[in-house]
Amino acid sequence: MKVEIITVGNEVVYGYTINTNASYLAKEVQAIGMMPTYVTSICDDEQAIINATHLALSRADVILFTGGLGPTPDDLTKEAVCKALQLPLEVHEASMKRLKAYFKNIGRKMTPNNEKQVAFPKVATILPNDCGTAPGCMIQQDGKYLFLLPGPPNEMKTMFSQYAIPYLEKVSQIFNVHLDIKCMGIGESELATLIEPYLLTPQEEVVVATYVSNGEVIVRLTAYHRDKEKAKVQIEKVKGEIERCLKPYIIGYNEETLEENIVQLLLTQNLRVATAESCTGGLIAATLVNCSGVSKCFNEGMITYSNEVKQAYLQVQEETLKQKGAVSEETAREMAEGIRKKAQVDIGLSSTGIAGPEGGTKEKPVGLVYIGIATKEETQVFKLNLRGNRNEIRQRTVKQILFHLYKKLKNNLSE
Amino acid sequence: MKVEIITVGNEVVYGYTINTNASYLAKEVQAIGMMPTYVTSICDDEQAIINATHLALSRADVILFTGGLGPTPDDLTKEAVCKALQLPLEVHEASMKRLKAYFKNIGRKMTPNNEKQVAFPKVATILPNDCGTAPGCMIQQDGKYLFLLPGPPNEMKTMFSQYAIPYLEKVSQIFNVHLDIKCMGIGESELATLIEPYLLTPQEEVVVATYVSNGEVIVRLTAYHRDKEKAKVQIEKVKGEIERCLKPYIIGYNEETLEENIVQLLLTQNLRVATAESCTGGLIAATLVNCSGVSKCFNEGMITYSNEVKQAYLQVQEETLKQKGAVSEETAREMAEGIRKKAQVDIGLSSTGIAGPEGGTKEKPVGLVYIGIATKEETQVFKLNLRGNRNEIRQRTVKQILFHLYKKLKNNLSE
Repeated sequence: MKVEIITVGNEVVYGYTINTNASYLAKEVQAIGMMPTYVTSICDDEQAIINATHLALSRADVILFTGGLGPTPDDLTKEAVCKALQLPLEVHEASMKRLKAYFKNIGRKMTPNNEKQVAFPKVATILPNDCGTAPGCMIQQDGKYLFLLPGPPNEMKTMFSQYAIPYLEKVSQIFNVHLDIKCMGIGESELATLIEPYLLTPQEEVVVATYVSNGEVIVRLTAYHRDKEKAKVQIEKVKGEIERCLKPYIIGYNEETLEENIVQLLLTQNLRVATAESCTGGLIAATLVNCSGVSKCFNEGMITYSNEVKQAYLQVQEETLKQKGAVSEETAREMAEGIRKKAQVDIGLSSTGIAGPEGGTKEKPVGLVYIGIATKEETQVFKLNLRGNRNEIRQRTVKQILFHLYKKLKNNLSE
Repeated sequence: MKVEIITVGNEVVYGYTINTNASYLAKEVQAIGMMPTYVTSICDDEQAIINATHLALSRADVILFTGGLGPTPDDLTKEAVCKALQLPLEVHEASMKRLKAYFKNIGRKMTPNNEKQVAFPKVATILPNDCGTAPGCMIQQDGKYLFLLPGPPNEMKTMFSQYAIPYLEKVSQIFNVHLDIKCMGIGESELATLIEPYLLTPQEEVVVATYVSNGEVIVRLTAYHRDKEKAKVQIEKVKGEIERCLKPYIIGYNEETLEENIVQLLLTQNLRVATAESCTGGLIAATLVNCSGVSKCFNEGMITYSNEVKQAYLQVQEETLKQKGAVSEETAREMAEGIRKKAQVDIGLSSTGIAGPEGGTKEKPVGLVYIGIATKEETQVFKLNLRGNRNEIRQRTVKQILFHLYKKLKNNLSE
């Protein structure tokens, strides 16, 4: 079944509110086997809402409206949708009672404009609002299902999950299972060529798509089936085939983060890590500390922004800094080795680079970054040429060093 | 002029990517006096894109597409829009040259599927992509303006601000001037009561609105006028009045960040700062290092996650840790004083707390955080009770310590 999401409200169209409601609803309906096909955001304008209703009725089976159920004159969704459906509104007595009780409870006077919030067409199924004053409703007409939900995310989510989902589950009969395979170290187009057959023709009824998010290339497998277990089996089969094509690039699945997977590997291999950061200024450590339980493999890090501090804390040689500069392979190497020794850990990580916007030269342009990984056996240094603004360059540096660390820890396992 | 924003991509419709592009574009076009009227999100589906193009042409003057310019088979925006406009595609030689150079520069192989990224209709004006491989374009037809922009936010934003805005500014003739006044240390509703008259009735034709973003309450002043200078004068007048109402809470204006304003104050007061972080794990330092030029006031920081490291590097007393615990006012105090002495700087900053999800107790629940600010004269410690998940608690800790540091530096000025 096709779903269209319509968010009503100037604040969304004008960009002051980011449309997280649409994202939430889209994910929720997929989880019960429905397919979001359109998301439309329109202003608080009666004719725009009427037009959007007619258009959605022509191309979707389920229409989810959010916003415009409030008491003020610019809250028009219910009035306009019912005009489009030619359904008159009348006061819903049970909701009116509930509303009166609500106002009594919070000790505030109910104003006449609140009354319009409890007017509904006779055929509507009322969806109670457990977090606010505006009830929602469901209207079934000509085999289509229209849901009118409030705009504030907490009210909308509570109402949708409590009262709309149980209804939709009965209507839908198809389940959707999906799996994200997250990759790094390869561009989207190069990756696409490695799995091209799967992208062009669904295998085992599993749709495969790629997209880029947060420096990673995501391969998304989706299966729809009346039998949820069967869908899972299909996903597993295609997963195995995709993994064979992309093995060196895979860094995780679904909601797993690179740092979580690294911390897992550090813990299972009983290894400890410490950081010495220049251009990233603490961001490598802060990213590792995102993970709960990190204290078993990470105890300390240094932010060594100046040359003096690099010498004092990490034993970077004055010679190195003078001859090669702070942004150099040699300095990254000495920093990684220095922190490894100082903290008496298994792995030392370092970063030094030019994050910009100032400080670049012809030989050492903005975006030149060296990252180091020192272990007992060896020290690897990687030279990066990164694009972006100061913050992006620093974020990408973190992503790169974590990626190389992850690969190293993975290799340990296969040795 | 009416603007419709069309975001193309399954990942947005399915809710896996939140549509921040639409929000960005809506705000940008308003800044040059245009009016966003519709935001539509559609799947990577040729017919859906063609239909959306026709619909948008019927109701908007400017149409901004984002997404679907990539190299993979499901990137269809340009192909579909040009089909709708009946414009054939051909390779744009200058863009092809640029693309080849890009791949040579990053040392990756260019695959044949990249070629479709540089095919454009002859009448199109090419918009270069300074951050990625997919150029965009502008097509003018029958008095309408269609812009095709890439999906990744950094690519889209750079292209739009650099190449599309100058074009649109010539088309539009009304100017919109706005000013954001950013506040902290006060809730939105309390702030609203302080400036209520301005919120209810526009003064000097300036519309005043409040919203919450990223832990800050933003007061937005907006003026529309054919004469840009006149609009600016109106804004300045209301700005002065609002400032009088909100003085103790103001932390900056427009795109200014708290950390930038702190670095500015540190530089003008010739003060240096160092950090000692436990629960924030480097995030305070990393946030300061967001600012270019920070090296003049920040040289070093320590991430002291374990008790041993707190003792060894910061001279936190074993007694303190034993009797009061690592998460305590006393530890935060000794950490701030310890890093101040060790780094020989003017201001020492510290954080210690329970970011969760594990580690909380009845006496010291998840979200309990102490932050310290040590100077020559005094050491202030603030106890925070924060809500949110691990990452949110850490982010909010950073925001709070920066807010207190900012206030302190501001006070220095008025003394």
